[in-house]
Amino acid sequence: MKALLIVAHGSRRKQSNDEVIEMAQKIKKHNDNSFPIVHAGFLEITEPLIPESIEKCINEGATSVTVLPYFLNSGRHVVEDIPEIVNDTKKSYPNVPIVVTPHIGNSPVMINLLLNTSQAQ
Amino acid sequence: MKALLIVAHGSRRKQSNDEVIEMAQKIKKHNDNSFPIVHAGFLEITEPLIPESIEKCINEGATSVTVLPYFLNSGRHVVEDIPEIVNDTKKSYPNVPIVVTPHIGNSPVMINLLLNTSQAQ
Repeated sequence: MKALLIVAHGSRRKQSNDEVIEMAQKIKKHNDNSFPIVHAGFLEITEPLIPESIEKCINEGATSVTVLPYFLNSGRHVVEDIPEIVNDTKKSYPNVPIVVTPHIGNSPVMINLLLNTSQAQ
Repeated sequence: MKALLIVAHGSRRKQSNDEVIEMAQKIKKHNDNSFPIVHAGFLEITEPLIPESIEKCINEGATSVTVLPYFLNSGRHVVEDIPEIVNDTKKSYPNVPIVVTPHIGNSPVMINLLLNTSQAQ
């Protein structure tokens, strides 16, 4: 049973965090059951942080966890912080594969998204 | 001749800014000529700032400018700062329609993008 964890930065503004949580809920609803478990987690400021949110997935029965950085740029958070935290957390779950995907800013779909947004005007 | 202006926050990290500029270049190349002019602009820290980048589009012959906020959350920058700066800039170009689109985090395509990224693993 695969889990998807959307990892955002975390904000002092509740609405920004809620938007990420809603995005995770939408993905849970709209994916073709390739990820029966979908949660949001945060790098800092907001709970659940990454280790807790990985634990949550595993407690719900995840046999693998895909960590997806919800970040636009390949800054330090994407290149260093998230992989480091995930690597540390992995040690507690040696039997569960936990992988980090590229950050979303790197997606080839981003161009379509930008054109779709701009042409809707 | 329509112009598209991708507006990102701006970063002290050159690579993050370069990624936005490259994204604008890709969009210029890959759109079906609905936007013959495409540039990147920045809210703060990095030049060109929004007013200069709108001016650049207009100097190149833009008859309208679509400002697309390259932001994931509807924070203060998206809700207040970008519209305010654009509204101020509009006063200098009364004959050129300048519109601000929703920020990209609000796009219905975002779910596809996230699923595409997660399933590529």
